[in-house]
Amino acid sequence: MTAKDNAQKTLSRLQPDVLAAECPSRLVLQHLTSRWGTLVMLVLISGTHRFSELRRRIGGVSERMLAQTLQQLESDGFVRRHVHDVLPPHVDYRLTDLGQEAATHLAALTGWIEDALPRIQAAQTGENADQPAGELA
Amino acid sequence: MTAKDNAQKTLSRLQPDVLAAECPSRLVLQHLTSRWGTLVMLVLISGTHRFSELRRRIGGVSERMLAQTLQQLESDGFVRRHVHDVLPPHVDYRLTDLGQEAATHLAALTGWIEDALPRIQAAQTGENADQPAGELA
Repeated sequence: MTAKDNAQKTLSRLQPDVLAAECPSRLVLQHLTSRWGTLVMLVLISGTHRFSELRRRIGGVSERMLAQTLQQLESDGFVRRHVHDVLPPHVDYRLTDLGQEAATHLAALTGWIEDALPRIQAAQTGENADQPAGELA
Repeated sequence: MTAKDNAQKTLSRLQPDVLAAECPSRLVLQHLTSRWGTLVMLVLISGTHRFSELRRRIGGVSERMLAQTLQQLESDGFVRRHVHDVLPPHVDYRLTDLGQEAATHLAALTGWIEDALPRIQAAQTGENADQPAGELA
């Protein structure tokens, strides 16, 4: 058991595995799928945006959460922040190549959710009970 | 401005949009990409699992969080809980057809993260500063 655990730990160090608690890939997953992370990535697919534009596009995000999310995505190398040396100075954000790749998968996921929403809503209303009736019968 | 807002609201009711704060698709996104939601879906791709098996496979999840996550995914119609009428009774979980579709996208995302991890880690160490040196120069 311990030998197996050790072997799995070694393996997870060689081969990234989001299921392993200590794998750094899991933290990246958390950043990309954080409450606002996915939405920021989605908006940036369409190109460079200023902070204020991002805030306008993403319904419900606060200034503080948007800033924190952008910083996280920037430090993972998904987003690049660019300070323009003009008057008045302005800052904008765009996806890096790595970010474009990640965003493609996020867009596939959210696109699927949007398309599947009627079916999901039917499932939600149809079987909301914790223990579906008759399952034990 | 108000007319435009109203138009956008109407549009978001007709066409699901995760960027709209009030769109139900956003809640579904949050469930599928919750801290443990994605990992539960991933494990269930390989078939039916008991609660204890899920807990063992997903490093770091608590009983409480796993139960809560499964309940959420079940009420969205992604996971089906099955109580077997045997002695001792046991309960297992599997993906529904809808869940399989969603899981495909989550697996593509996490697979990409695992594969891209070396590049992500290089980006993390290479440009961790909030304001990259020389950007204003």
